[in-house]
Amino acid sequence: MAGKKWAFEDFVPGATMDLGSKHVTAEEIVEFASEFDPQPMHVDEATGKASMLGGLGASGWHTCSMFMRMMCDAFLLDSTSQGSPGIDYVKWMRPVLADDTLHASSTIVAVRDSSTRPNLGFVTMRAKMLNQRGEQVFELQNTGMFLKRVVA
Amino acid sequence: MAGKKWAFEDFVPGATMDLGSKHVTAEEIVEFASEFDPQPMHVDEATGKASMLGGLGASGWHTCSMFMRMMCDAFLLDSTSQGSPGIDYVKWMRPVLADDTLHASSTIVAVRDSSTRPNLGFVTMRAKMLNQRGEQVFELQNTGMFLKRVVA
Repeated sequence: MAGKKWAFEDFVPGATMDLGSKHVTAEEIVEFASEFDPQPMHVDEATGKASMLGGLGASGWHTCSMFMRMMCDAFLLDSTSQGSPGIDYVKWMRPVLADDTLHASSTIVAVRDSSTRPNLGFVTMRAKMLNQRGEQVFELQNTGMFLKRVVA
Repeated sequence: MAGKKWAFEDFVPGATMDLGSKHVTAEEIVEFASEFDPQPMHVDEATGKASMLGGLGASGWHTCSMFMRMMCDAFLLDSTSQGSPGIDYVKWMRPVLADDTLHASSTIVAVRDSSTRPNLGFVTMRAKMLNQRGEQVFELQNTGMFLKRVVA
């Protein structure tokens, strides 16, 4: 797919896109949480270890944000994306801990034309992230808006 | 509610919590987006103005993260929170632009006991954020886990 600019027509239901990997450091976890989610288990390792997380755990919003960057780098920055109306759901299934390496993929669930803008379509995707032990830590279903390559 | 540590029992369906206000700067928008969502309309003002957003617009995940910090400061850091299993949905209804001031509130939708942990309960809340013109920009429904003050 190198050199290709992704447009609405390129998203085929059932197809799965590899979104690559991301190593998560303690410094990143503390930096994000200090600004946006300073609960003790996200900013202090000892508190995290004693919590349900079992270690210094990333804020769930940090996990979402890391996923967004992986999606950007995998295809979104090279696409006709017009943004997103929202997220269908997010599941934080297991803790994301310092030194974890996450691997993400996203499967196209459905596509539909915009009813008001003939040059636009909606793409619904379901993504998951696994850690280095193959355990699923995250699931998300989101919908993006993409310009069409060919307008009927 | 000053000096009170929020526990499961304090969340009453129908009650609304004021989560305060947040002014959004262009610098914050670009800083977040550069790391997590470097789509052109989030990092470049001219591109943002020419896009559907109509200005330098915050990443939707930045809006979520700012909401999380408002929730932390309003009550979560002074609560028995044990984290969250996920988000029911997010709606990004209007752009959040540089120099906007957001105001958030959250209404308790439902509470239920954990079926496996007698000292824990689930609280489902529906939050919204308005901008300085009173326009709703964001809606989210989330569920948090809180320890009980009294275990039956």
